[in-house]
Amino acid sequence: MLTIRLRRGARAADPRGGPWIRARDVARMRGPLVLGELARVEDAAGRTVGYGLADPDAAITVRMVARGETPPDDDWLERRIGAALAARRALGLRPDGPVTGYREVNSEGDGLPGLVVDRYGDLRVVTTTTAPMTASWHRIARCLDLEAGVRPYLRLCEAPTVSPPPAAWCEPPPRVAWTEYGLRFEVPRTAMQKTGGYLDQRENRRTIASWVRPGMRVLDVGTHVGGFAIAAAAAGADTVGVDGSAAALAAAADNAARNGIADRTQWIEADMFADLDADALAGPFDIVVADPPKVAARPGDVRRATKALTRLAARLLPRVRAGGRFVLCSCSRNVTEEHLDAAVDGIVPIHRIAVLGAAPCHPVALHHTEGVYLRAAVYQVVGGDGTKIRTDEDQPAAAKRSSPIARR
Amino acid sequence: MLTIRLRRGARAADPRGGPWIRARDVARMRGPLVLGELARVEDAAGRTVGYGLADPDAAITVRMVARGETPPDDDWLERRIGAALAARRALGLRPDGPVTGYREVNSEGDGLPGLVVDRYGDLRVVTTTTAPMTASWHRIARCLDLEAGVRPYLRLCEAPTVSPPPAAWCEPPPRVAWTEYGLRFEVPRTAMQKTGGYLDQRENRRTIASWVRPGMRVLDVGTHVGGFAIAAAAAGADTVGVDGSAAALAAAADNAARNGIADRTQWIEADMFADLDADALAGPFDIVVADPPKVAARPGDVRRATKALTRLAARLLPRVRAGGRFVLCSCSRNVTEEHLDAAVDGIVPIHRIAVLGAAPCHPVALHHTEGVYLRAAVYQVVGGDGTKIRTDEDQPAAAKRSSPIARR
Repeated sequence: MLTIRLRRGARAADPRGGPWIRARDVARMRGPLVLGELARVEDAAGRTVGYGLADPDAAITVRMVARGETPPDDDWLERRIGAALAARRALGLRPDGPVTGYREVNSEGDGLPGLVVDRYGDLRVVTTTTAPMTASWHRIARCLDLEAGVRPYLRLCEAPTVSPPPAAWCEPPPRVAWTEYGLRFEVPRTAMQKTGGYLDQRENRRTIASWVRPGMRVLDVGTHVGGFAIAAAAAGADTVGVDGSAAALAAAADNAARNGIADRTQWIEADMFADLDADALAGPFDIVVADPPKVAARPGDVRRATKALTRLAARLLPRVRAGGRFVLCSCSRNVTEEHLDAAVDGIVPIHRIAVLGAAPCHPVALHHTEGVYLRAAVYQVVGGDGTKIRTDEDQPAAAKRSSPIARR
Repeated sequence: MLTIRLRRGARAADPRGGPWIRARDVARMRGPLVLGELARVEDAAGRTVGYGLADPDAAITVRMVARGETPPDDDWLERRIGAALAARRALGLRPDGPVTGYREVNSEGDGLPGLVVDRYGDLRVVTTTTAPMTASWHRIARCLDLEAGVRPYLRLCEAPTVSPPPAAWCEPPPRVAWTEYGLRFEVPRTAMQKTGGYLDQRENRRTIASWVRPGMRVLDVGTHVGGFAIAAAAAGADTVGVDGSAAALAAAADNAARNGIADRTQWIEADMFADLDADALAGPFDIVVADPPKVAARPGDVRRATKALTRLAARLLPRVRAGGRFVLCSCSRNVTEEHLDAAVDGIVPIHRIAVLGAAPCHPVALHHTEGVYLRAAVYQVVGGDGTKIRTDEDQPAAAKRSSPIARR
């Protein structure tokens, strides 16, 4: 078994440092590396810290799967996958339940670093993002193949594999489809994001729909295939969805029709950072959701990201009715509530009434703060009963400069 | 008008520092202090930073109510109160709605530092916690007295008042009562906490009830007058509520009877930090909620508080069924998610699936991180499908030492 010795004083020796051991924490390695197998991690004095999956070429050299002296059993991978699936069933998530689109395995969150499995009805989209997990595809397949009638689709993000997976596992599906609290969503291959759709926002779509009373107007910026707009329209709102992708909007319109609420939805193709001048977007709206692409992939991007979010907030907040809500999402783990607060500051009088996160099928491992990525800060515009809402910070001319930030 | 000059480099000159200006930030004061009136705050170079309520004897010398050159209007207090009430109506909170227990004014969160107003049906409990706000009681009364049929109760926490409030405002109510999504709660004077009940946990009670399927077993530790237990029992669970106060438990039993679910509830008097050995508490439970009193009033208390939470978690987590949920609450603003994670670490295999906060009628002002206090971290016990749950960290003997921490 490969043994990895940590440098003296490496924070990685402390469980509270989280499950990632970076190259700078490693003093030396001894013994054979078998990708997919466990390596033992020891501190500078040779005491066993725990066990993890080693990937010497990666920026994160080891992803821990257990702390302490005792190595995990030989069947740890199978047991962890079984536990992850059981945990979802315990949350009431099952292919014959009211929600058929959910995450079955969430990488570090389930003690399975590098493995993500999303369920879309009778389809499983399996993603491996690290070499050790990719090398274990056949063990993973054995666990996931047990259920009859499930079509698997394997995305191998990093080489190498020990042996190539069967062809049936590798054919990208023409579409993914799922049910969410009585609503049906479909994403064709042309519009897929992440594993297909944004399952992490599921409970937030439901929460926002719970705020709707008939006749409200809701704006959903970054709607993808209709997510928040369709949930709100089904609850009785008149909604407008905005996205930069024509393919996504076509799917959104299909989803609206599929759910019988096309007459309460409108779809506008626009770049949210550059072009929100369409008449339909003028407002006022009772609820505005802004779910931009990942704006800060690295800690160094945070300043630029906050500026982009500020520009977005400056254009959208004045369109929110006094008393209404503005939901500013970030899927960049480096963007905190404080950054979101900074982005909405000084535009209109506002206070923060909640911070929402990812759906519970996206668990976070203890002390793995990197696993917290999705934040949706909910602000209320105050100023009813006479307090004027300032709109002078709305600077469409300045905001028209196209944004350099990447699409997620 | 009193002018307060900040020290060179004081963080309080930056809006991102939040609305509190502490004594150490103040270089000098000039001019007359009229309690309840605004003071101008300037930086070391004499530039106006903004306006706030000054209280030179308090640890927080100024609580800002506006940033920038322009002072708030003479009727700023009235307008802010009006805006706060309007904001609650915009959230669907009104005395004739499905929720009649809610916070109408949340101090800094509504730009009204030192003023808290809680609504319990036709009763208003008005609390002033700073001398300037106490001195403004007659202006506050004018705003709140406008609604006919509302009984006010004023709690003046700090002297002085300019003139004493009318007797009708000062008589403590014999009880508070409210409705919460179809459930009725009452708290007699003998069991009142905070302004009467814990309105901040309202949406969390509803969320936890939404997890219940008939036949589940739910344990509510720190139940007060039945909160989580009654919400879960109404959703079909068999529940056990634990509290250290016999008066609170008597009220809890009354509330259970009032809602017709007494047969699904059981009430146990116990100190959660010392004595959880009653047979009814043995488990396994599908959901365990631990809502302890404030364990860390000051930053220096955090280490001791985390130890107390660890002891509590070590006793409760082994009683949660595999796949079940453990909700660990903290109402100490110094206790973060990371502290809660540390408290649950190493007891049984677990991951975090959500972090809940205070109900949206408890808004937070931008950059006022001190305003974030209630956190309810939701963990799921994993280990279904064969992974054994370790229970050896359950140390009732050690945990029996009585806790030195204060009741909130």
